[in-house]
Amino acid sequence: MTMIDVPLYENERIDDLQLNGLHIIQNTMGFCFGVDAVLLSDFCKDRIGKGAKVLDMGTGTGIIPILLTEKTKASYFTAIDIQEQCVDMATRSVLMNGLSDRMDVRLCDIKAAGDTFPAASFDVITTNPPYMIADHGLLNPNEPKNISRHEILCDLKDIVSNSAKLLCPGGRLFMIHKPFRLVEIFEAMRENKIEPKRMQLVHSYIDKEPTMVMIEGIRGGNPRLKIEPPIIMYKREEENK
Amino acid sequence: MTMIDVPLYENERIDDLQLNGLHIIQNTMGFCFGVDAVLLSDFCKDRIGKGAKVLDMGTGTGIIPILLTEKTKASYFTAIDIQEQCVDMATRSVLMNGLSDRMDVRLCDIKAAGDTFPAASFDVITTNPPYMIADHGLLNPNEPKNISRHEILCDLKDIVSNSAKLLCPGGRLFMIHKPFRLVEIFEAMRENKIEPKRMQLVHSYIDKEPTMVMIEGIRGGNPRLKIEPPIIMYKREEENK
Repeated sequence: MTMIDVPLYENERIDDLQLNGLHIIQNTMGFCFGVDAVLLSDFCKDRIGKGAKVLDMGTGTGIIPILLTEKTKASYFTAIDIQEQCVDMATRSVLMNGLSDRMDVRLCDIKAAGDTFPAASFDVITTNPPYMIADHGLLNPNEPKNISRHEILCDLKDIVSNSAKLLCPGGRLFMIHKPFRLVEIFEAMRENKIEPKRMQLVHSYIDKEPTMVMIEGIRGGNPRLKIEPPIIMYKREEENK
Repeated sequence: MTMIDVPLYENERIDDLQLNGLHIIQNTMGFCFGVDAVLLSDFCKDRIGKGAKVLDMGTGTGIIPILLTEKTKASYFTAIDIQEQCVDMATRSVLMNGLSDRMDVRLCDIKAAGDTFPAASFDVITTNPPYMIADHGLLNPNEPKNISRHEILCDLKDIVSNSAKLLCPGGRLFMIHKPFRLVEIFEAMRENKIEPKRMQLVHSYIDKEPTMVMIEGIRGGNPRLKIEPPIIMYKREEENK
């Protein structure tokens, strides 16, 4: 794949995603993706069918849909974010990778998404939303990084209720979040008729509490949860012997 | 501890619990305990304070409270079961172990438990309830074993709603169940103002789906779930090298 030249602004750099020539622009002072985005793309990729229409809510650098353009045969990815800087940066990443025919990035508030797009117009929604409850330990709520990490401009219920409007019946919502909020996540999904059907915990080490949880909900699905074997990120020395 | 002689009936045998001389009567044709009861007793033992009053719902052989008499300093254990054979057998196990001053077993329907005992009269409730939805794959609903395994005479909601009546504020409900019902369990607890606060998954092998989940709920607790590192029952040969 040939990279197309795009402008870079202050503190931005281009990183190689080690996936068939894909690259991404990150801002070292603000918007960098984490391992959570990569994990979520792996968690959902086999459930995204050929020709699917996918929405990524709160896309940041655009990392999740950019990875999924390579990992799936979905036909089109729409990515939204409320921060102009993110939309601008992710748009340049789309352009740079020559993906403009399969993906676009729009400035859109998650809270308004349900009214911005037609009802039931997506097969799949992915989201790596802010994890932290709004004002827990927060010094500066206007800081761009904090908007990505804390529920300042939208919360779990906004994400799930807007997803419910936008998913087609049988459509899937994939979310990565913090395990301590699992009860709330299940409740918000059920209240919006998105049944949690599959989950997977991510642990740094086998004997440590999980640091993340990934959940797949199906709009209108029947109750029955499948819990996958956990992902263990690291092995200790003695386990490698 | 000296064992007290008690009568044994057909198909019954006495097993050594390998815990300070404790023994239990089991019926090889019907009521034997499984590893789940042992796991639940370990999951809850450190959260049961000195002098606590404990209720075990659907006690079967009486295994959970019998183990907890040794693993905790709780003052009194009440165990209930709807099957007369269980109550009779578990009562003889209590007598045999010389535990009659700390535990008794009563014939009581879980659905009626909330009206049988005074409100808010227990600090802790433990339960290893029927796991399976009533008629899923069920041939004979009158079979005693099936009453222990299937939700024929009571279901998840009966257990949680009666627990909510019987737990004191801040009291704890400990349950072991099947992971595929986790969403329902959380919902039933929240509906009854018992907040799921802690959970632990049990896997046979690290790379297999979990076979059981243990949950601690606190009556009137604040939302925040702690997920413990998983229990892995077996190691494969190569992992032992």
